[in-house]
Amino acid sequence: MKSLEERINDLVREVPNFPKEGINFKDITPLFCNPEESKNIIKHFANQLREQNVDVIAGIESRGFLYGFPLALELNIPFVLIRKKGKLPPETISVAYDLEYGSAEIEIIKDAVKAGQNVHIHDDLLATGGTAAAAGDLIRKCGAEVQGFSFLAELTFLNGKDSLANISPNIITLLRY
Amino acid sequence: MKSLEERINDLVREVPNFPKEGINFKDITPLFCNPEESKNIIKHFANQLREQNVDVIAGIESRGFLYGFPLALELNIPFVLIRKKGKLPPETISVAYDLEYGSAEIEIIKDAVKAGQNVHIHDDLLATGGTAAAAGDLIRKCGAEVQGFSFLAELTFLNGKDSLANISPNIITLLRY
Repeated sequence: MKSLEERINDLVREVPNFPKEGINFKDITPLFCNPEESKNIIKHFANQLREQNVDVIAGIESRGFLYGFPLALELNIPFVLIRKKGKLPPETISVAYDLEYGSAEIEIIKDAVKAGQNVHIHDDLLATGGTAAAAGDLIRKCGAEVQGFSFLAELTFLNGKDSLANISPNIITLLRY
Repeated sequence: MKSLEERINDLVREVPNFPKEGINFKDITPLFCNPEESKNIIKHFANQLREQNVDVIAGIESRGFLYGFPLALELNIPFVLIRKKGKLPPETISVAYDLEYGSAEIEIIKDAVKAGQNVHIHDDLLATGGTAAAAGDLIRKCGAEVQGFSFLAELTFLNGKDSLANISPNIITLLRY
């Protein structure tokens, strides 16, 4: 019998040369079409987080909302949104960070997380870790603690875990490429 | 005892003069911090859809992902993503539509919905109905049927239901302003 990781990997669709020549894009959208396996994914993350001291799940826009919110519902804890700049109503706290080309800024609503809370950050993909590290900075800027991170998939050759190690060593990934 | 609508309305935060002077923005993000009431919202929509013939839930990026995906999980049916142009891997089907100023384009992955399927479209807010109507066109362009729409909230004075009436008369909203 196949493991959850193998079954989920079978559902991921490979798209060659997207978004640019030479990149083999992993399309995870077929997972959302499979409610049974999606529930198994949510339980997989929830089971690992239940033993931890997690007060809040923070999901990174927009694919981090997809498993992030059901995960918070499964754990019966609040879910807060980390969005691109300008999308959340005031007042917000923001963090700017560098991308390969240019820069970006992410925001959270002020008081969405409270000082001292243990926040778990969720996103679909760990690549270089730039966005996740910025999300960690954002949570700390709110006075809260980063309990850890979870990602549906990790591109291991980009060493994203290294950029997150000084924020939290608790990093859960289901698929590794 | 308060009704679900009253309790949810109590959780919505009013933000005056956002995104511009004179507009009273309804911030629904506190709902996601309340797992119990969020589960009640999902059950509220699911109970109404269970009696209908719904094969797929389509959620409009990005806040339509938030209750849309757990709703699909509750109904045990597939969830498909309708996203802004350029965010989904190929091949996609797209529809352009007019906004108050300028235009926009939304996309779906080709074959995400199949010809003849009954698709329910979910988003957080029904304003003029422009985006939801475009989502309806997109589903029809895939050869599928639009079973109906659901929205967490409706701005009734903008008459969004009128723009959707010729696509489907089945429109569920929880909060009305």
